[in-house]
Amino acid sequence: MLGRVRTAVAQLVGGLGPAPGAQPPRDSPAPPPVPPGPSACRGPPVGGGFSRPAFLQLTSEELQRADDHAGRAVQSPRESRRRLPWSTGYAEVINAGKSQHNEDQACCEVVVVDRRCSPRCNPQRRKDLCFHYWGLFDGHAGSGAAVMASKLLHLHICDQLRDLVDILQDSSPPPLCLPSDSRALPAERNRAPLAQADAELRNDALPRFHLEKAVSHESLVIGAIENAFKRMLPPSDEQIERERTTRLVAGGCCALAVVYLLGKVYVANAGDSRAIIIRNGEIIPMSREFTPETERQRLQFLGFLRPELLGNEFTHLEFPRRIQHKELGKKMLYRDQNMNGWAYKRIEEDDLKFPLIYGEGKKARVMATIGVTRGLGDHDLKVYNSNIHIKPFLSCVPEVRVYDLTQYEHCPDDVLVLGTDGLWDVTNDREVADMVTEVLMSYEPNDPCRYTKAAYELVVRSRGALKERGWRLANDKLGSGDDISVFVIPLGGPGNYT
Amino acid sequence: MLGRVRTAVAQLVGGLGPAPGAQPPRDSPAPPPVPPGPSACRGPPVGGGFSRPAFLQLTSEELQRADDHAGRAVQSPRESRRRLPWSTGYAEVINAGKSQHNEDQACCEVVVVDRRCSPRCNPQRRKDLCFHYWGLFDGHAGSGAAVMASKLLHLHICDQLRDLVDILQDSSPPPLCLPSDSRALPAERNRAPLAQADAELRNDALPRFHLEKAVSHESLVIGAIENAFKRMLPPSDEQIERERTTRLVAGGCCALAVVYLLGKVYVANAGDSRAIIIRNGEIIPMSREFTPETERQRLQFLGFLRPELLGNEFTHLEFPRRIQHKELGKKMLYRDQNMNGWAYKRIEEDDLKFPLIYGEGKKARVMATIGVTRGLGDHDLKVYNSNIHIKPFLSCVPEVRVYDLTQYEHCPDDVLVLGTDGLWDVTNDREVADMVTEVLMSYEPNDPCRYTKAAYELVVRSRGALKERGWRLANDKLGSGDDISVFVIPLGGPGNYT
Repeated sequence: MLGRVRTAVAQLVGGLGPAPGAQPPRDSPAPPPVPPGPSACRGPPVGGGFSRPAFLQLTSEELQRADDHAGRAVQSPRESRRRLPWSTGYAEVINAGKSQHNEDQACCEVVVVDRRCSPRCNPQRRKDLCFHYWGLFDGHAGSGAAVMASKLLHLHICDQLRDLVDILQDSSPPPLCLPSDSRALPAERNRAPLAQADAELRNDALPRFHLEKAVSHESLVIGAIENAFKRMLPPSDEQIERERTTRLVAGGCCALAVVYLLGKVYVANAGDSRAIIIRNGEIIPMSREFTPETERQRLQFLGFLRPELLGNEFTHLEFPRRIQHKELGKKMLYRDQNMNGWAYKRIEEDDLKFPLIYGEGKKARVMATIGVTRGLGDHDLKVYNSNIHIKPFLSCVPEVRVYDLTQYEHCPDDVLVLGTDGLWDVTNDREVADMVTEVLMSYEPNDPCRYTKAAYELVVRSRGALKERGWRLANDKLGSGDDISVFVIPLGGPGNYT
Repeated sequence: MLGRVRTAVAQLVGGLGPAPGAQPPRDSPAPPPVPPGPSACRGPPVGGGFSRPAFLQLTSEELQRADDHAGRAVQSPRESRRRLPWSTGYAEVINAGKSQHNEDQACCEVVVVDRRCSPRCNPQRRKDLCFHYWGLFDGHAGSGAAVMASKLLHLHICDQLRDLVDILQDSSPPPLCLPSDSRALPAERNRAPLAQADAELRNDALPRFHLEKAVSHESLVIGAIENAFKRMLPPSDEQIERERTTRLVAGGCCALAVVYLLGKVYVANAGDSRAIIIRNGEIIPMSREFTPETERQRLQFLGFLRPELLGNEFTHLEFPRRIQHKELGKKMLYRDQNMNGWAYKRIEEDDLKFPLIYGEGKKARVMATIGVTRGLGDHDLKVYNSNIHIKPFLSCVPEVRVYDLTQYEHCPDDVLVLGTDGLWDVTNDREVADMVTEVLMSYEPNDPCRYTKAAYELVVRSRGALKERGWRLANDKLGSGDDISVFVIPLGGPGNYT
């Protein structure tokens, strides 16, 4: 992410080395579940300095080209190599020099969920659960967090789903409470919570507050994805925090993850990447961005309730510009954690502190440091030249939106587009939709390469061409100098849902 | 509000007596500004027990009829008496017996804003500012807060606007900072903040963080309305809290206020009343409801950060039903302040506490007590049989939505409908829109009574008719047994904008 972290508070460190392998074949056994404790994700040792997504299968020569800021060659999966699930299209390009390496990372996998099985588990009744997964990770202040997230987030999602394998494949409502041995098969588990609760009511066990909330299968998957993000790095996103001390996982990353499971697409976003569905030319937004501006009130509320987090350097109030000492006693516009409008207040000594949220648009910052308010990592991020931690104000919790693929008959031109902010900084939803549609229409509907061509074009056009005055778009405006990564996922194309 | 407060934690007390008078004529002098301090809104003494909006101009006999739970006569402004501004329609009916009196209140005024004037103020340059105002207040646990809010909120809005009289009528952007003497006229005040800031920048006064946010006139009005709600009752909504000790202002109220100022309609909502615009048959929602379900995460976040507010009786986690002691160690569905989905957790001792948020739909409650999470008052509201205060979880801050009347040519059938939850509990937006359109079409477009007829019909039809099995709608479903109050405000009718 270009300039997302204003001050260089964390040193650039290398990634975790190249990914250990491509996605498993669709009928392969489940990926290894994440064992508990810090040994979970040892993986390859730190070092190597630079890695690209495993599914690109880059040769060392290609890797070198991908790392070249001058040429900015766009990378896509080669046609001659293994195709991504659903014939997904992908393309990426390195930044124009803002960081040593491309700090974006990506992942595309088919994951088989291995149920947690008790001794009573009947192997005859087992029915596998599998999900498709796409992830985009936009790193800042180092590539460690993005590399780690790209290798692990889907495994954490898998782990969270292990208790749900039977429940999700059973059409009856999920049990509200599981018996102590929660690994039982459907036939053995508590199947009739309502009937049980009714009996309890008759026994006067819950005479007064007897109410019961219906919980859908869908909301269990949402809960699993939310908790997987949390497990990634501690105390909230646990794993990255644990690893950072031993493995030098520096920096943080935005995370945009898509899970296709049992007919539904779950889009989970924590950061400022973006997902849209293009369906019959129409745009359906599947995410929103989390920035100091969109999350101002949450952050101000925390600063108000926990002033000690502001380190006596910041005020939770927002002002439209810095206040000078000589303005003490004058009236200045402000807004607090409760306000959307502005009002005047008389300036006091405390108002001379730096505002917790400051700046507009791409220049908005939390504590004058970071321009994105959700994501993974950033445990060591501090305000420049101070001991004030910024992590308490950041959230690792994604917003999850659900799209039911079975509710609509999709044509081969209907796609889900995921892009890091490098794409969206210079284009908008409509332009992206038009570009994608234009490219797709120039290929046969059953040509599996068309989605990669579309991703490629999106990256090329938002990067622009190198001219005398830098990278320029077709309209001569400045192209994106940031890392750019794009998935184009067909929703009704050939090879879909297999 | 029917059953909004589950336990009778506050005694029913009488209102503040009948309103002192109807709205001032349009060219009358400004209403008296609210003087600072507790003497601000002395008004008539406590007592009298029952009052209806002054603009109804009810005789004592009519007042008695309005207070009759058995007959539930619908009240509307009489045609023979003074018409409301813009020929606004209004109707109300008392509940079917859930509380002693009608706890809804209403207000409709034209308010002239008297600028705060310094000695340097040039009376020649004064240009009056005036706003139209409609307010609906739905009381609970006593009528005191609703009565008080209906008499005072518009005066607080007026007071907040007094500093803005010249600024709002000046087409240049609002100054970010006012000189120490903030009462200067436009010509005398800081007119060129950008130029000044530029000069400062050149002087290297703000070398590093020089940014300046544009603030619109509209956002100043929003800020004024937000702060007016806050001033109503302390520590946040100050006046009601102050008055309650001396004046026995008991209970609380939802507040829905509409301000028309300089071409724009501002709809401010704190509670579960609702406002919609019906324009050419299309529905434009102008508010959303604030309930334990819609505000769950805000409340859980506060309970998580300030566990002492939970009094060792409540848990900030949500569970889909009560947990029994014998279920300790089992796995139960839950969600915390960060989750929208659900997941299983092993039940611990702490989870046996009562959930902060519990129940669904109209039965959802905060601390098993109150079913609405924003509004005015409730300073004394405690959990039944305990010393746990609920007010810290309630917010007096409204959400303000803006509708620009000048952007569309409105016809006489375009209206803004405000209703307390007594209306919306038994109807939906579409049904209300259809009913209103049907009534309006049966009167001449220039008949000023048509909006009162529409309001009357909405109340009659949502109350229903008294049958053997209680109040029944036309479809034989149960009618609303709650207090019902409705404004129908024409946006393009006769006498508009005058």
